[in-house]
Amino acid sequence: MATAGKVIKCRAAVAWKPNAPLVMEEIEVAPPQKHEIRIKVIATGVCHTDLYHLFEGKHEEGFPAVLGHEGAGIVESVGQGVTEIKPGDKVIPLFISQCGDCVFCKCPKTNLCEESWASVRYGVMSAEESRFTCRGQKILQFMGTSTFSEYTVLNQIAVAKIADDARLDRVCLLGCGIATGYGAAINTAAVTPGSVCAVFGLGAVGLAAVMGCRNAGASRIIAVDINEEKFAKARALGATEFVNPKKHSKPISEVLAEMTKGGVDFSLECVGSVAVMRSALESCARGWGVSVVVGWTDVADFSARPIQLIAGKTWKGSLFGGYKSKDSVPKLVLDYKAGKINLDEFVTHNMTLAKVNDAIELMKTGACIRTILSVCPE
Amino acid sequence: MATAGKVIKCRAAVAWKPNAPLVMEEIEVAPPQKHEIRIKVIATGVCHTDLYHLFEGKHEEGFPAVLGHEGAGIVESVGQGVTEIKPGDKVIPLFISQCGDCVFCKCPKTNLCEESWASVRYGVMSAEESRFTCRGQKILQFMGTSTFSEYTVLNQIAVAKIADDARLDRVCLLGCGIATGYGAAINTAAVTPGSVCAVFGLGAVGLAAVMGCRNAGASRIIAVDINEEKFAKARALGATEFVNPKKHSKPISEVLAEMTKGGVDFSLECVGSVAVMRSALESCARGWGVSVVVGWTDVADFSARPIQLIAGKTWKGSLFGGYKSKDSVPKLVLDYKAGKINLDEFVTHNMTLAKVNDAIELMKTGACIRTILSVCPE
Repeated sequence: MATAGKVIKCRAAVAWKPNAPLVMEEIEVAPPQKHEIRIKVIATGVCHTDLYHLFEGKHEEGFPAVLGHEGAGIVESVGQGVTEIKPGDKVIPLFISQCGDCVFCKCPKTNLCEESWASVRYGVMSAEESRFTCRGQKILQFMGTSTFSEYTVLNQIAVAKIADDARLDRVCLLGCGIATGYGAAINTAAVTPGSVCAVFGLGAVGLAAVMGCRNAGASRIIAVDINEEKFAKARALGATEFVNPKKHSKPISEVLAEMTKGGVDFSLECVGSVAVMRSALESCARGWGVSVVVGWTDVADFSARPIQLIAGKTWKGSLFGGYKSKDSVPKLVLDYKAGKINLDEFVTHNMTLAKVNDAIELMKTGACIRTILSVCPE
Repeated sequence: MATAGKVIKCRAAVAWKPNAPLVMEEIEVAPPQKHEIRIKVIATGVCHTDLYHLFEGKHEEGFPAVLGHEGAGIVESVGQGVTEIKPGDKVIPLFISQCGDCVFCKCPKTNLCEESWASVRYGVMSAEESRFTCRGQKILQFMGTSTFSEYTVLNQIAVAKIADDARLDRVCLLGCGIATGYGAAINTAAVTPGSVCAVFGLGAVGLAAVMGCRNAGASRIIAVDINEEKFAKARALGATEFVNPKKHSKPISEVLAEMTKGGVDFSLECVGSVAVMRSALESCARGWGVSVVVGWTDVADFSARPIQLIAGKTWKGSLFGGYKSKDSVPKLVLDYKAGKINLDEFVTHNMTLAKVNDAIELMKTGACIRTILSVCPE
């Protein structure tokens, strides 16, 4: 392309500081360096983790940054040494990389990667290196991705090449939320056929967990949320029963114990609340119940009574659904194309990148599941 | 026997109330009822759980009681409907029963039993039913067993028949502490060959966990205790390295991370301290580390940061080493006879039941591993 090797000036939504609206700016995106790939972003979801960083995480160090980590795009140019991906390829940026060579990548039990920004910077949530500048200032790449920009640059270990005919304004959701919830049920909880499951929190991650439980063959899927407007979507994705904790005076774990003769086989916390994490564990069956923390928070401890574990429950956590990113995202795209994974149900709003602050407001009020932002024309 | 069908008057150590020495009393032990077995207790260990109930658990409701749950004896008589066990058989009382018919007993994933006293009374730690009286007052059976008595009565689902030539003053330890620690490593953690393990707390349970890690083929076993006098025993049972947290200014999880390039594969908490439970989790490797809570406490919450789980660690708990009691204890006795399980190393003191308060003092000060109390002559 004509832009290869040159700095690209383009539009991006810059988070200059915490607790303030994003500002549409012209930024400079440097050419990809060795093993890097520059991508034209076509579409991006707005995920709660973007909001978390901006409003809740108190990560002063992570600014200024371009947020966005749930995108899909087309390769504009590649740096030296990139052979497996070429300009024009459709790709999904990966906030967890897969280098293939580290101790984690070589272990089948985990999807962590030693080369990932997250290995050393999860407290800050922005990679140290960045190819962005704005008004002479370095702008950080949130989660190593930064999809709220028309162009972004990633290391090839953090880019998944996907099917040429993939619908980018849908499969972008596989870059975070849907893979996270779906895989938490399929991989981390390893939900078994015929089992009884509970999913706490019916945002996109929780709804994807519901879909994961259904596809794993659960016989009952109890959807728990204080916002009953989410129940219809949950039903569409496989939930069989619905509980609003606000309508019960007793602890939700007791409500679920009564509904299930003692507790559920699998519970998934998709809120990011330490109180809900506790409830989810307490809602599991003694002897074999497995509870998975999927929601993210790092400002408080989770806690429980030791008897919860001693009585035979297991507490686990899931990051990006346990998927080894580069290997798995292309397969998830095929699952979407085959109708096995429903992404359309998650998209409640469509906007342009310039309206990103409106999308953030929608998410803060719980009025949307996912807003897809159009970034560049394909 | 001449005593069959009659009340037996015998000696027992009665815990009349919390925080007071046990009192040797003459008690009446009623004949076994339907499906029950009356046992002459030959030997019993003194376990920290006895102390816990007496001094730390604040279980006012569980008194007066006869403590002791780590015993071995000989069947004196059996009640109606008991066919698989006969007078003269050598047996080990089981504080977790195995009825064989409940949902837990039928599930291979757990060793809980719905018929166990613990299913409903773990907060009190004494079974509701009892065959003991003293001075006209009902005396509770702690953990459904009460081995600090010359005779005791148990339901047949809580009695394991063992080899006729078993040495009762050794295999009694398989009734709690050694099975608990050993099985936590073998069954619950499922320690893998070549793995790196850490065991926190080197009482009998922790030392048994060390032995379990060794028998599972761990390549490194790091023994952690603030009492360095325990290290020699730990070495004898398989520990390869030793850490005294008091000799380090940094958190023990950081010390272990440095020793192991990031953390251990398996950690076992054998103290019953929520602070140590946290350390044990934090000491695990990201991605695949498994931490098992083995020590018992119910007076406080354990806690940690969610990232500990989200980064791929698993938190589990273990009760009686995950062993289905009636099936497994006879096999563990055979493992002792075959030299696979070392029990002799655990026995540091021998006394008579009348000296039980001395044995309790020894345990409180950490001066013993296990004291074996002789109860009746064989």
